[in-house]
Amino acid sequence: MTAPVLSPAELIDAMGTRARAAAGVLARLPSERRRAGLHGAAAAIRAARPAILAANARDVAAGEAAGLSAAMLDRLRLDEDRVSAIAAAVDQVAALDDPVGREIDRAVRPNGLALSRVRVPIGVIGIIYESRPNVTVDAAALCVMSGNATILRGGSEAAASNRALHAAFTDGLAAADLPAETVQLVPTTDRAVVGAMLMAAGMIDLIIPRGGKSLVARVQAEARVPVLAHLDGINHVYVDGAADPAMAEAVVRDAKMRRTGICGAMETLLIDRAYPAGAALVAALAATGCTLRGDAAAQALGVAEAADATDWDTEYLDAVAAVAVVDGLDGALAHIARHGSHHTDAIVTGDEDRAERFLAEVDSAIVLWNASTQFADGGEFGLGAEIGIATGRLHARGPVALEGLTTYKWLGRGTGQVRG
Amino acid sequence: MTAPVLSPAELIDAMGTRARAAAGVLARLPSERRRAGLHGAAAAIRAARPAILAANARDVAAGEAAGLSAAMLDRLRLDEDRVSAIAAAVDQVAALDDPVGREIDRAVRPNGLALSRVRVPIGVIGIIYESRPNVTVDAAALCVMSGNATILRGGSEAAASNRALHAAFTDGLAAADLPAETVQLVPTTDRAVVGAMLMAAGMIDLIIPRGGKSLVARVQAEARVPVLAHLDGINHVYVDGAADPAMAEAVVRDAKMRRTGICGAMETLLIDRAYPAGAALVAALAATGCTLRGDAAAQALGVAEAADATDWDTEYLDAVAAVAVVDGLDGALAHIARHGSHHTDAIVTGDEDRAERFLAEVDSAIVLWNASTQFADGGEFGLGAEIGIATGRLHARGPVALEGLTTYKWLGRGTGQVRG
Repeated sequence: MTAPVLSPAELIDAMGTRARAAAGVLARLPSERRRAGLHGAAAAIRAARPAILAANARDVAAGEAAGLSAAMLDRLRLDEDRVSAIAAAVDQVAALDDPVGREIDRAVRPNGLALSRVRVPIGVIGIIYESRPNVTVDAAALCVMSGNATILRGGSEAAASNRALHAAFTDGLAAADLPAETVQLVPTTDRAVVGAMLMAAGMIDLIIPRGGKSLVARVQAEARVPVLAHLDGINHVYVDGAADPAMAEAVVRDAKMRRTGICGAMETLLIDRAYPAGAALVAALAATGCTLRGDAAAQALGVAEAADATDWDTEYLDAVAAVAVVDGLDGALAHIARHGSHHTDAIVTGDEDRAERFLAEVDSAIVLWNASTQFADGGEFGLGAEIGIATGRLHARGPVALEGLTTYKWLGRGTGQVRG
Repeated sequence: MTAPVLSPAELIDAMGTRARAAAGVLARLPSERRRAGLHGAAAAIRAARPAILAANARDVAAGEAAGLSAAMLDRLRLDEDRVSAIAAAVDQVAALDDPVGREIDRAVRPNGLALSRVRVPIGVIGIIYESRPNVTVDAAALCVMSGNATILRGGSEAAASNRALHAAFTDGLAAADLPAETVQLVPTTDRAVVGAMLMAAGMIDLIIPRGGKSLVARVQAEARVPVLAHLDGINHVYVDGAADPAMAEAVVRDAKMRRTGICGAMETLLIDRAYPAGAALVAALAATGCTLRGDAAAQALGVAEAADATDWDTEYLDAVAAVAVVDGLDGALAHIARHGSHHTDAIVTGDEDRAERFLAEVDSAIVLWNASTQFADGGEFGLGAEIGIATGRLHARGPVALEGLTTYKWLGRGTGQVRG
């Protein structure tokens, strides 16, 4: 790769102009053409597997030489199965319901003007991500299916892998006669390009950051372009006094320990002071190998370590949980209102009134009754995929897939109506 | 009014904290309570009419002394009828369908988890506006009905009027037992407070600017909080070769001249080179007193003045229109793509295929066939009111009323489901 001859702002301006042109074409293509493009991309990825794996091996070797952590190397590493899975995911996206053109509502006004709201693509989506090369393909596929042009900016550790995946993906699109600029990959790892993307209001319609908290925080702090992101998943499970103990144990174990590194993992367990089986619940969670940090009442139930004030606001993403004993539903609601991050919270109870109050009053994107917080996932919600989980309050909230990548316009069909 | 003792950031922080608490209460009140609060506010405004008019007289006198333009004084001035109309508008908002709690969709997952998406208020809305005191009440009423707390920051010219209207409005809410901090008015005209509102991410969920282009541009440039706004309404009417001449004249006259100062007014007339009655159309529009500025071909049809390059990008908001002759539908689409502001554009034609292409391909919030652009209005669209017309692409687009002031959350009701 040669050094860029354009400034970061000029580069993004040029890419944005091409993306806008592609978006205009893409928005008018019928579903079948976008689906065909994606099937072409999936086939091209399968065909390019040797080149993709060779590029990935270079990234992994460079990462090992640079001393990347084992976790980062795992996120970076591809193998035959992972490349196959990446291609299969593209085929799956191509099979989803198309939101573009879907009518949201319609009405005929008293003057005879026939109005309808119809979903249309957003336009140009910028994706800023870190070391997982599969994001290159996953994000691009969702954007293509929803009729959007995409500008991808991946992490420098995965640069060769991303270029190989992007080359295959766009070859596949081109074979299906989709515009060449439908999916563009920023051709430099210069960090200033991220800043230029964040400032590109009017060129990029929406930025979606995919990565760790520091990336997302930087994007949210600097962007002049709208951002769809989640920052923290400080998720709670509240075990109510009326919870079934076996169900409580199963839900809490799954919410915390099924996978500890995902944003839907439980970080804080709230136990109703009136719950009779608190000590057994604590013991069951501790028996999974989870480190527990509790307040004094939780320690009295068997929690080994004392929590400090920061624990209630910490997203561990690890086999660690904070445990607090609260005074019933009101205590749980107050704790979540103070410490929650508006991502996913759950209540376990057999009392329907309390459950409905919890569902109504917890101000989070996802609120669950008698189910694990680890269901916070577009696939589990029936969306077929997800580009992220939004914890902001505007546009889309919770798991975001194709619908969240569209907007709408109002169409009015008249017979010469004037306001007069 | 005494000088504020808090810094602008401290003031907004304190107001935001109170607003968040009020929003939590408001979001859980049933429709009836919010409706009762609004009827109380309307009654209190009627009862306070003498005090409101006295306050307004002070603002008007100060404005005259300061040399405000006649147009600004007209926007500022209240009389008995205008106050009655303000109160009546609040009663009308109280009669609208309540979006809060409305189910968007639902599904039972294969594992039995019952999912639904339900509309909830956004939370805390900041309204930044200029000299029209009625915005104090109109905006507050829409926010209350949609379950949101509001922080209002009006123009300094209307400070006394806004205080009087706000005092009556909140007295009425309080009489119906709604939280005192449901609607707060910034108690200073210090411009730095606007800056503090724009930076108040996490305290204010959404900023809606209501006013002229310089206000909206400042808000969009500086805000760290999401903004719902429209900047320009550079709206086009394209008169196609297959247009009925009588309909074309009626639509164009209405779109331009019914009211020239509103954002839905036509600014540019595009005439198909193949349209046989172009000269008559130009003459009809000129006969209304509209100044016309055209390209060479439009001048050949009778347009008196030559347009320069800036005319195609100008929102006149006056009895002035740019006129261009274009090569059919493709020429019109290209002109709108280059110069439009994504607000409202219309085609007049008897050719359904061309009309449907125009509806599909023009990338604007509102696209109309055989109807005047002046229908761009929440009331005309059956929304019962509007807080503005959004020309951005995220969250809400076009006329925004109660639904646009809500977001949603996902509710899941299970029986102990775990992902395992």
